[in-house]
Amino acid sequence: MSSNKGVTPRSEDYNRWYTDVVQKAELADYAPVRGCMIILPYGYELWEAVKSGLDRRFKETGHRNAYFPLFIPESFLKKEAEHVEGFSPELAVVTIGGGKELEEPLVVRPTSETIIGWAYAKWIQSYRDLPVLINQWANVVRWEMRTKPFLRTMEFLWNEGHTAHATYDEAEEETLRMLDVYADFAINDAAIPVIKGRKSQSEKFAGAMHSYTIEAMMGDKRALQSGTSHNLGQNFARAFDIKFLDEDNELQYCWTTSWGLSTRFVGAMIMVHGDDKGLRLPPKMAPYQVVIVPIFKREDEKARVMETVQRMQAALKDAGIRVHVDDREGQTPGFKFNDWEMRGVPLRMEIGPKDVEKQSVALARRDIPGKAGKQFVPQTNIAETVGSLLDEIQANMLQQATEFRDANLFEVVGDYQKFGEIVKDGGWALTWFCGDAACEQKIKEDYQCVSRCFPLDQPHPGEHGPCIACGGQADEMAYFARAY
Amino acid sequence: MSSNKGVTPRSEDYNRWYTDVVQKAELADYAPVRGCMIILPYGYELWEAVKSGLDRRFKETGHRNAYFPLFIPESFLKKEAEHVEGFSPELAVVTIGGGKELEEPLVVRPTSETIIGWAYAKWIQSYRDLPVLINQWANVVRWEMRTKPFLRTMEFLWNEGHTAHATYDEAEEETLRMLDVYADFAINDAAIPVIKGRKSQSEKFAGAMHSYTIEAMMGDKRALQSGTSHNLGQNFARAFDIKFLDEDNELQYCWTTSWGLSTRFVGAMIMVHGDDKGLRLPPKMAPYQVVIVPIFKREDEKARVMETVQRMQAALKDAGIRVHVDDREGQTPGFKFNDWEMRGVPLRMEIGPKDVEKQSVALARRDIPGKAGKQFVPQTNIAETVGSLLDEIQANMLQQATEFRDANLFEVVGDYQKFGEIVKDGGWALTWFCGDAACEQKIKEDYQCVSRCFPLDQPHPGEHGPCIACGGQADEMAYFARAY
Repeated sequence: MSSNKGVTPRSEDYNRWYTDVVQKAELADYAPVRGCMIILPYGYELWEAVKSGLDRRFKETGHRNAYFPLFIPESFLKKEAEHVEGFSPELAVVTIGGGKELEEPLVVRPTSETIIGWAYAKWIQSYRDLPVLINQWANVVRWEMRTKPFLRTMEFLWNEGHTAHATYDEAEEETLRMLDVYADFAINDAAIPVIKGRKSQSEKFAGAMHSYTIEAMMGDKRALQSGTSHNLGQNFARAFDIKFLDEDNELQYCWTTSWGLSTRFVGAMIMVHGDDKGLRLPPKMAPYQVVIVPIFKREDEKARVMETVQRMQAALKDAGIRVHVDDREGQTPGFKFNDWEMRGVPLRMEIGPKDVEKQSVALARRDIPGKAGKQFVPQTNIAETVGSLLDEIQANMLQQATEFRDANLFEVVGDYQKFGEIVKDGGWALTWFCGDAACEQKIKEDYQCVSRCFPLDQPHPGEHGPCIACGGQADEMAYFARAY
Repeated sequence: MSSNKGVTPRSEDYNRWYTDVVQKAELADYAPVRGCMIILPYGYELWEAVKSGLDRRFKETGHRNAYFPLFIPESFLKKEAEHVEGFSPELAVVTIGGGKELEEPLVVRPTSETIIGWAYAKWIQSYRDLPVLINQWANVVRWEMRTKPFLRTMEFLWNEGHTAHATYDEAEEETLRMLDVYADFAINDAAIPVIKGRKSQSEKFAGAMHSYTIEAMMGDKRALQSGTSHNLGQNFARAFDIKFLDEDNELQYCWTTSWGLSTRFVGAMIMVHGDDKGLRLPPKMAPYQVVIVPIFKREDEKARVMETVQRMQAALKDAGIRVHVDDREGQTPGFKFNDWEMRGVPLRMEIGPKDVEKQSVALARRDIPGKAGKQFVPQTNIAETVGSLLDEIQANMLQQATEFRDANLFEVVGDYQKFGEIVKDGGWALTWFCGDAACEQKIKEDYQCVSRCFPLDQPHPGEHGPCIACGGQADEMAYFARAY
């Protein structure tokens, strides 16, 4: 469990770089089952940061956590027509339990709309029972053929929120509220400048009325769907008979929503922020925000240096800063610098005999390479100094990612060939799109990409233009890009 | 999702009382798959309290969380002889994935020693890699025939710690350290006075060298194994080839441990503390530590009362106390009192027009029924008053449970018939026991109970006595009791 060499530079081979970072920074390891992964402690701590950032926001918006069973009777999946069509090719099925063949096979949940729909039908009787606002943190399984650690794995961890409402408007409001929660978390905690938008009918969730997404641009300019929020309309309510008596004593179907964000998001953090040297973690998400590397040669130096190291560590810890001291013996400071750089720790503190003497420490920022990112600061008020530097790094990483994204977004009107060049070159094309499945299919065949979303923030609201594929009238613009 | 009637009194029918509490306090609901349950928000919040109490302690003792796959190749289970014998009758097996029959069936993990053993063999090369101290929070599946919400379900949630060490002594130390962590949590957070002990060879974990347990006495005097910690010796290291080069450059097998505590613990909290009226929650575990019930008849009263209610709520919240205001309309205060009593909230605050006038509030303790537990206190310094009352309740609940336990522990020497009467009457018998499987079997047949543990705290250390079953020399005393 140690890394001795650096990663393949990102600029050289993006795919190998990703695999290297995942392995050498000890984020995940391969599992003995095809398509599964072992999430290693450092990777899991990133997921814990995702969980706690989201869980707090879910609770602030009135949701409570619950837990529904892993196994779903196979017949449940078949109740919603689009849903079963979308998920049946991806199912893992338990046919033997306790040594016996089961009468009805059990599906390992690929998502829980069906079993939760069954429960909501039982629980909801009256408008007084609404809204129901529940979230669960769980593992799900989808039998994927081409997998990649974090981005696409057979089993993954996620949150899935499931809510039921009395009206379409309330369900739509909830769907957008949770999209905002995801975007707020992505932007402000993970420093990922996601674009909020609505999926096309071809790209929506199987069984949804419509789906919203937060789309992020990775370091190779590909798009990654990083979280989704679905207005399920009355589709699942009809399939599972989720009804309520309204205030006029009339029986109505509920309007339901679901929204999810998964361990895939850890992949997004790696890909958005990483550079040639490896991982770069935004301070709010980093398991270690600061790593202290003690530097000494002789024993008498060690004593003095370590006294200062411990004092700095205590001061940072007291201020709630996540700090790690790298006191490994038998490794040079240079090795440690490279190692923590590769692991993406936002701030490195170096303390040597000269720093002890001068009552200062050296600080090196991960977001600004080399000398430009290095400074000497006094030991007094170290927690304040470090705290505001971490804030700066957080803001700078968001700015860097935003600038990169904006430099690769291109608006194109009418010119199908130019549109194709943009997406083939890896850029995101923003263009008028009628939303028709046939148009989406044509673009997919011609340029190996589909629409990412109709951004909620339309550049020309109220106007319309020619659909990039068919030339017919389009009322909205959509992003197209190659995607993971 | 509402409760309109009280629960069956505990003194009347313990089993119905348990089922009633689980349903009416909305802790769990039945699932469409036999033996599974839906953990409802209030029940899940209890589990979140368990998780956070343990997770903090795991991290303080140097462990990190990771996540291993749900699916284990069937062949892995067969590598450790005792392990496969213990678990094969209980397995759920996936035979179909992505629409195709699998070449090798996948087992849904019943516990993860095997897959983690596989990984450790890959990760560990040298003594420098040791110890490995990893925990995971996960769901596991065991095909149980007789299930009961929380206590025994087909799928359950738990923590499973898995560690690897260079020596037997270190593994043993770790096993006992984690037993202590469980006991400390149970006693100090959940107010459950568990007894720490070692399992007999017949009762140990399948594949362990020896197993330790924390045993709790439920309200009906039955025992519940509430958490376990296993020294796995070199059994799994040999089965999975987990080896390291020691400091003398010799290849050695590792010594491994595992330890787990599950959602079963929520069942323990219900059963240890509950009374005729329903749930009683220790303040450290309660989702709501205080519930405020506003009391008013006229609109002008409402305004004044609610102003005070909000002020009290804010003061408690600021002090970090979990407070809930029951402002449901159309329900009488009396209904609300009973409802929150049934749901086990430790402290109820009543605020009516007279309290507003007198600048006081009424407080009713859940642990002391009726008038004796009720008092009027000034609104000033409410957070302090409530804080110290919650501390008192926490301490009192531990004391009540300890007194109940101690009143039902009986030491018996040599008299097999008296021994039988004690356990048949529901008590716990502490007696000399040679630990032989044949003796354990005899007792099981005669009195339908097995040994719970050899308590670490032996009443007559260094002495010995006649085994209760065979009369041969026994060096330790063991507890026997009927159990869940």
